[in-house]
Amino acid sequence: MSIEVMPNFLKKRAFLTPSRTALIFEDKRYTFQQLYVECVDVAGRMHTYGMRQDQYVALLLSNHSESVVILLSLQLLGIKAVLLNTRLTREELNYQLKDSNSAFLITEALFKEKAEQLDVHIVYKHELFQTSYIEPPLVNEVALEEVCSLMYTSGTTGSPKGVMQTYGNHWWSAIGSSLNLGLQDGDGWLCAVPLFHISGYSILMRSMIYGMKMVLHESFDVEKTLQDITSEKVTTMSVVSTMLSRLLDHLDSQLPSHFRCMLLGGGPASLSLLERCVELQVPVYQTYGMTETASQFVTLSPEYSLSKLGSAGKALFPSQLKIVDSYGLEQQPLESGEIYVKGPNVTKGYLNKESSHLKDGWFATGDIGYVDDEGFLYVQDRRSDLIISGGENIYPAEIEGVLQGHVAIQEAGVIGVEDQEWGQVPVAFVVVRDPLITEEEIIQYSSTKLAKYKVPKRVSIVDELPRSASNKLLRRSLKEWVKGGASNEN
Amino acid sequence: MSIEVMPNFLKKRAFLTPSRTALIFEDKRYTFQQLYVECVDVAGRMHTYGMRQDQYVALLLSNHSESVVILLSLQLLGIKAVLLNTRLTREELNYQLKDSNSAFLITEALFKEKAEQLDVHIVYKHELFQTSYIEPPLVNEVALEEVCSLMYTSGTTGSPKGVMQTYGNHWWSAIGSSLNLGLQDGDGWLCAVPLFHISGYSILMRSMIYGMKMVLHESFDVEKTLQDITSEKVTTMSVVSTMLSRLLDHLDSQLPSHFRCMLLGGGPASLSLLERCVELQVPVYQTYGMTETASQFVTLSPEYSLSKLGSAGKALFPSQLKIVDSYGLEQQPLESGEIYVKGPNVTKGYLNKESSHLKDGWFATGDIGYVDDEGFLYVQDRRSDLIISGGENIYPAEIEGVLQGHVAIQEAGVIGVEDQEWGQVPVAFVVVRDPLITEEEIIQYSSTKLAKYKVPKRVSIVDELPRSASNKLLRRSLKEWVKGGASNEN
Repeated sequence: MSIEVMPNFLKKRAFLTPSRTALIFEDKRYTFQQLYVECVDVAGRMHTYGMRQDQYVALLLSNHSESVVILLSLQLLGIKAVLLNTRLTREELNYQLKDSNSAFLITEALFKEKAEQLDVHIVYKHELFQTSYIEPPLVNEVALEEVCSLMYTSGTTGSPKGVMQTYGNHWWSAIGSSLNLGLQDGDGWLCAVPLFHISGYSILMRSMIYGMKMVLHESFDVEKTLQDITSEKVTTMSVVSTMLSRLLDHLDSQLPSHFRCMLLGGGPASLSLLERCVELQVPVYQTYGMTETASQFVTLSPEYSLSKLGSAGKALFPSQLKIVDSYGLEQQPLESGEIYVKGPNVTKGYLNKESSHLKDGWFATGDIGYVDDEGFLYVQDRRSDLIISGGENIYPAEIEGVLQGHVAIQEAGVIGVEDQEWGQVPVAFVVVRDPLITEEEIIQYSSTKLAKYKVPKRVSIVDELPRSASNKLLRRSLKEWVKGGASNEN
Repeated sequence: MSIEVMPNFLKKRAFLTPSRTALIFEDKRYTFQQLYVECVDVAGRMHTYGMRQDQYVALLLSNHSESVVILLSLQLLGIKAVLLNTRLTREELNYQLKDSNSAFLITEALFKEKAEQLDVHIVYKHELFQTSYIEPPLVNEVALEEVCSLMYTSGTTGSPKGVMQTYGNHWWSAIGSSLNLGLQDGDGWLCAVPLFHISGYSILMRSMIYGMKMVLHESFDVEKTLQDITSEKVTTMSVVSTMLSRLLDHLDSQLPSHFRCMLLGGGPASLSLLERCVELQVPVYQTYGMTETASQFVTLSPEYSLSKLGSAGKALFPSQLKIVDSYGLEQQPLESGEIYVKGPNVTKGYLNKESSHLKDGWFATGDIGYVDDEGFLYVQDRRSDLIISGGENIYPAEIEGVLQGHVAIQEAGVIGVEDQEWGQVPVAFVVVRDPLITEEEIIQYSSTKLAKYKVPKRVSIVDELPRSASNKLLRRSLKEWVKGGASNEN
C-alpha cells in the first residue's frame, strides 16, 4: 500500500503556468508566480514567529487577497489551518481554539475587539507582514493523507466537531468537480462566499489545481458580482439560494455567454427560483455537499433543473452514495432512508473523536432522502434538523444547549422557519423555571453566547415540549405548532 | 492509511452520462449505456468460460470495437489484462504468457496461425460472443492499487518485464492529462495507435473517466484520419512522428478549429516537422512518457514548440522529475544525468521481479537528459540505447540476445540508425564462429525469433566489437562506425 505524494500545489502550479492570473481582489492582481513568491515571503515571516510544521494555526480573517496569501503560506509550511467563522462569539471561538490546540491565531484589526478576549497567542496580519524574514523550511511534497484544514461543524450532540480535511480530500473534490463541469483555458471562479467555509476554501484549492483565476470579493454584492462576471470574464460562481435570488432580481439582460456555471449549494432551491433561472437562461447546477465531503458531492446539471425538480443530482465520478434504512440495509429506489456517502473526498474523521465515523468507507450523513429510478438523489430532511440560513449551517442542538445553560430555562427546542430573505431562520420554544423572564432577555442572553445568525429570531415560552415515548424532543411537532399558529403557547 | 476505492469506471460513467457517445468504430456507434450493457453481457460469457477475478487473461487482438468490449468486460470482472503486441513471434508471446501465468488467451481468427502455436487455453472472440451467458459477479468497486493491465517492455537485461499498471496509474495519468489539456463537452479522441500499447489503452481509460468519445481506427490511415477529424469532430489525437509527418503531407488546408491537440509521443520530433506544424497551425503537444508511467508524464504546450525546441516540456501536475548523477545526487539545471520520475501514475513494479525499482517513490528511467533554467526537460539519450521505430520500442539487448543464441554467432551488438520512414531501424554487428554464415541467413534466423520490426535491417560481420575496459559493449562506438562508413567491417 503506497501513500500518494504530490508536489505542493501552489509551487507546482507556479512552475507550470507562472504567468497565468491566479487571483483578483479589488485592484490587486496576482499571477501564480507572484502569488508563490509572496507566499514564500510570508512563510518566512511566519517562521520568524515560531510557526512550525504540523501545528494547528487558527485564522479569523475576512475575504481578502492577504487572507489567501496567509492560507497558502501555511500550506507551504505544512501547517494545518483552523478556519474560524468570523461571526462566532468569544465562547464559540475559544472552544474551537482549545479543541484544536491552535498554537497561534492570525487575525486582522477588524476583529481586534473579539480577538483580545481569546485565549491564544494572537498575531495580527499587519504585524506578520512587517516582521523580519527567516528562510523557512518549505514543504515541497505533500502526502494526500495529511490534514490541510480544519473546519468546525456541529451535530446532534450540539458540541462542534473539527472536520479534518486532507490535501487528498480537497484534491479529489476538485477533480470530481472538473470531470463534471469541464475545464477550459481562461476559466475564472468568482468567490463571494467566505473563505472560512468549504464553499470558499474549495475555490481556492481548485484555483491552484486547475490553474484557474479566482475573483475574490470581500462579501456578496449584487452590483459588483454582475460587473465582474462581465469584466473579469467569470465562468463559474458559487452561490446559495438567497444570493442567486438577489442576482436574478438585478439581472436586466442575460449573463454573458462565457458564463457557464452557477453552482448552487446550501440547501434545496424553490421551483420559482429555478423557473426564473430557466427563463433568464442562467445555467444553474444544484449541488449537495457538506464540510465532511470537502464541498459538492452530488450535482445536478442544468438540463435536469426542471425535469428533476427538487433533486440534487448524481454523485460525482469518484464518489458513491446509497440510501440505508434504520437496520443498515440498503434501500431500493424511491424508498427513503439515511444518505450514506463514500469516496476519496470524504473526511478521515473529526479531531479528537473516535475514528469510527466510517464503516467500510461509508459516512452516514444523518440526512434523509431517496434516489429515483434513474439514480437521482432527492434530499428530504437535513440531518439533525439542520437549519440553513443564508448559506450558514445552524444546528438546533447547539442553540438548545446554550438556552438550557440559562438558569431560568428548564428546557428548549429550536427549529427553522421559512424566511423570505434568509431561506430559514431559527426560532426557539422554551419551558421556563422563572416565569418573570422575557423573550427579549432570552434573545439578549443568546446574543452573548452565539453568533448573530444563530440567535433565535423569536422565542416562545411554552408549558411543555413535545417529546416521544423515549423522551426524545420532537422538532417536527414544533414545526406543526408554527404552521398551526402555535396554539399551545402560553 | 486508507486505500482509495472508486466505482468501476465504465459502470459509473454509464450511470452519469448514459446517452453520451462512448465509441465510434467504422459504422458502429455506442453510447456509454450501450457499451456498458454489451460489456456486462460479454462478462457473463467470459464467466461461462471460467474466467475469474484476479486471473491474468492475455489478449492478442487488433483495434476493433469488440476489442474495446473485451477489455472493459475484463475490468468488470476484476480480471487483469495482459496486452500482447500482435507483431510478436511465437517465442516472444509464449514468454509473456508463461511469465504472466495467463489463464486464457482471447484472440481472433486473424491471428489463428500464430495463436495455435501458443501454450495457453485459447478463446476466439467469435466463440466467446456466441457462448451462453451466466450471470457474472461484477466488480462494482475497484481499489486504485489493484492491477488493471500488464504490458511487457524490455530493458538492459534483454528479457521482457511485465509492467503492472494499476487502476490508479491509469486514473492519475488521465487526470494529469486533463489538467493540462482541459476538458470540454463534445471532446473526442482519435485512436489510431494500438490498444495494446499504453498510447492506445490510455485513450480508452480517458474515454470512460472523462465521458469522452473515442474514435477508434483499426490502423493508421491518413485519409480516414483527416476525414474523421472533420466529420466526427475529433478534438485530440495521439501520434508518433511518422504518423504526423504523413498527416502533414496530406493536409491541403488547416485542420478544423475544433481540433485542439495533436499529442506527439514516441521520441523527439525534428525541427523541420515542428516548423511545418507551426506553418500549418497544427497544435502539437510534444510528450515524454513510457509504459511504466501509464502514458505521458511530461508535456510541452504548442506555444513552446519552437522556443523550447527539443524539449519534452514539464512534468504534469501530479508528477515530479529530477536529474540524478551517477552518485545519486540531484543535478543542477543544464547538467545532464539520469531522468528520475515520481508520481501516482508510476507503476508499482514489474511482475515477478523484486519491487525495489522505486527508491522513495522515485523511478529511474534509464534515460539521460537535463532541465533548463525554467525547468523544461530535454531528453538526450533513451534508456538502454532504446531504438524507437515507428512508435515501437526496440531494446538492442533483446535482439543481441537472440542473435547470440545462434550457434554460428559469437557476439552481437545492435544499434538504431536513422531512417527516413520509421525514424530509426535496428542494425546489427556480429562476430561469427562460422565464417560461412551470411547476412541473409542471420536475418532469416532473426525473423523466426523476433517481431518483424525488431529484425535487423542490416547485419555487418566484424572482427570484434568495441568494448570498455570492464568489457561492456560500447554501442556509441558502433554508431560512430556507421557514421564513419563502418570502416572496421570485414
